[in-house]
Amino acid sequence: MEDSSVFFIEQNLLPFEFRIQQSVSFSQSCHAIRSMQVRGAGAIGALAGFAMAQAFLETEKSKDPGLVSRARAEIEATRPTARNLFFAVERVCNAGRGSAADALAEALAIADKDSEDCRKIGEYGNSLIREGCRIETHCNAGWLAFVDHGTALSPLYLAHARGKKIFVYVDETRPRSQGSRLTAWELHQEGIPHAIIPDNAGAWLMWRGEIDLMITGADRIAANGDTANKIGTFEKALAAKAIGVPFYIAAPLSTFDLNCKTGKDIPIEERGEEEVLYAEGPDDTGIIRKIRMASPGSQAYNPAFDVTPAQLIRGIITEKGIISATRDGVRGVFD
Amino acid sequence: MEDSSVFFIEQNLLPFEFRIQQSVSFSQSCHAIRSMQVRGAGAIGALAGFAMAQAFLETEKSKDPGLVSRARAEIEATRPTARNLFFAVERVCNAGRGSAADALAEALAIADKDSEDCRKIGEYGNSLIREGCRIETHCNAGWLAFVDHGTALSPLYLAHARGKKIFVYVDETRPRSQGSRLTAWELHQEGIPHAIIPDNAGAWLMWRGEIDLMITGADRIAANGDTANKIGTFEKALAAKAIGVPFYIAAPLSTFDLNCKTGKDIPIEERGEEEVLYAEGPDDTGIIRKIRMASPGSQAYNPAFDVTPAQLIRGIITEKGIISATRDGVRGVFD
Repeated sequence: MEDSSVFFIEQNLLPFEFRIQQSVSFSQSCHAIRSMQVRGAGAIGALAGFAMAQAFLETEKSKDPGLVSRARAEIEATRPTARNLFFAVERVCNAGRGSAADALAEALAIADKDSEDCRKIGEYGNSLIREGCRIETHCNAGWLAFVDHGTALSPLYLAHARGKKIFVYVDETRPRSQGSRLTAWELHQEGIPHAIIPDNAGAWLMWRGEIDLMITGADRIAANGDTANKIGTFEKALAAKAIGVPFYIAAPLSTFDLNCKTGKDIPIEERGEEEVLYAEGPDDTGIIRKIRMASPGSQAYNPAFDVTPAQLIRGIITEKGIISATRDGVRGVFD
Repeated sequence: MEDSSVFFIEQNLLPFEFRIQQSVSFSQSCHAIRSMQVRGAGAIGALAGFAMAQAFLETEKSKDPGLVSRARAEIEATRPTARNLFFAVERVCNAGRGSAADALAEALAIADKDSEDCRKIGEYGNSLIREGCRIETHCNAGWLAFVDHGTALSPLYLAHARGKKIFVYVDETRPRSQGSRLTAWELHQEGIPHAIIPDNAGAWLMWRGEIDLMITGADRIAANGDTANKIGTFEKALAAKAIGVPFYIAAPLSTFDLNCKTGKDIPIEERGEEEVLYAEGPDDTGIIRKIRMASPGSQAYNPAFDVTPAQLIRGIITEKGIISATRDGVRGVFD
């Protein structure tokens, strides 16, 4: 954030175009979250914090006393599942009682801490990665989805940087294909060997002994360790448990929501059917086209997240270490 | 088949265009199988039988004594996994020792029997479907994939025709999307309520209690009941077992390969990465466009089938009744 503007990578254009966008108001920042120009738990959280700071700055100019609470309601209504959003909005709101400058400082601190937490997650997660390790991941929990480093991908980047040979199987992650479009793009930028696989292939590769470890991110983690993440995470965790592949979640503590006792308390976003029925991408001349993928007479159902029970999760990689929700509980890490 | 021509539905054009194609030679028929203009276990089997009959008819004209064995090799090399192909080729080859007319009669008999078997599968499978049943299916095992009726969808069609209310969750079935393109299209033609879901959503819907029954087809079934089918079937069967949703395979006995003791003996086809990286469909003006879906710098891995262990299969719906591979074995049904 510079002055009252937030600058962000427009993720809907990736992997075909890299563009930095500018948001000059809290309402533009809300639009960026709603339209998924900015997506990914940490990136949403950081932008929500900045949006809240923008609302305080706008209040200073407009002297409109109701603007902050209206802005908070609008920001909180953008995406319901990611915990980081509510965490950041609350903290910036509290700081803003002092001054708009305090709100901005808090938003910047949240973003810096997100980056630092992700770096530490990389350190702890790297301890799980052996030489030659073949890792499956779902959706995108890399540096695009956070302020930097990422969560699920942070250990991979560190392992690669320290010279370990690794190979990454990237779940395509339908319907929005964040795996084949964003994670694959990140891994290509980083020079890490990888292959995109259809979401249908994960369990089969595990069964054939081709996956040593699976790590995904998280959008919200309940007090008992149940974890909401991109749709399909639950199915992979079930397969990993049945086949004996260690399944880990990587997430900063800001993802935990102790007000949710179990996964049943986590609100799950349902998105429009267009994401399933249509696809966008460049044709062979480079022009971006939107095509219908599915039979014209049919509708689709598109739950965007699912909840993985804690029993299926070997461990949660946080900035304070790797915890086992079922063995240690999650409350201990907050002490 | 009329004279020496085979007529088939060009499935690659569906669901956006319905066209009947004509194949005038065994070699054109091979191309139709290889290019997946004709796909689906029973349809491949029927066309392979007709292709073999075409080879006998062509031999009558050309007097080329080596043509039949060359043709057999070429037909058998088109697709490695579907058992029905090898079953049909062998039977037509044996019949052709008499005359080309005998080969043709045998090929026609195989196609007729495929249709009749599928009708009976519908009768047996219908017994599993209660009023209000919500059924998940994977890939396309409907009448497009066979000569008529289909296997996994045949019980659904019969239940619907008999006035039962049913709802079908159609797995998109990446990477070729036979679910959202073919099964959804068939169900729409038949007026059966349904919704396309991302492959990632299946386990989650099961967990939420929204799936009462899952039925898929099969490409080859080993002597112990292990079943090769479209990639993703194994993952769904794992989820169904873990969650307690009855998981059934529907297939005629021609799908069984008693020479394969277990699933490990079934050859698994791997297909090109283009199916994962690109998608085709009409833009808003109706022009079919091919677009890149995935990050340009990345490659994909595309195993086309997987093997579901018999232990995960509640029963196999055949034209002779529903058998439990693990309880009854599969050999009994051949007596």
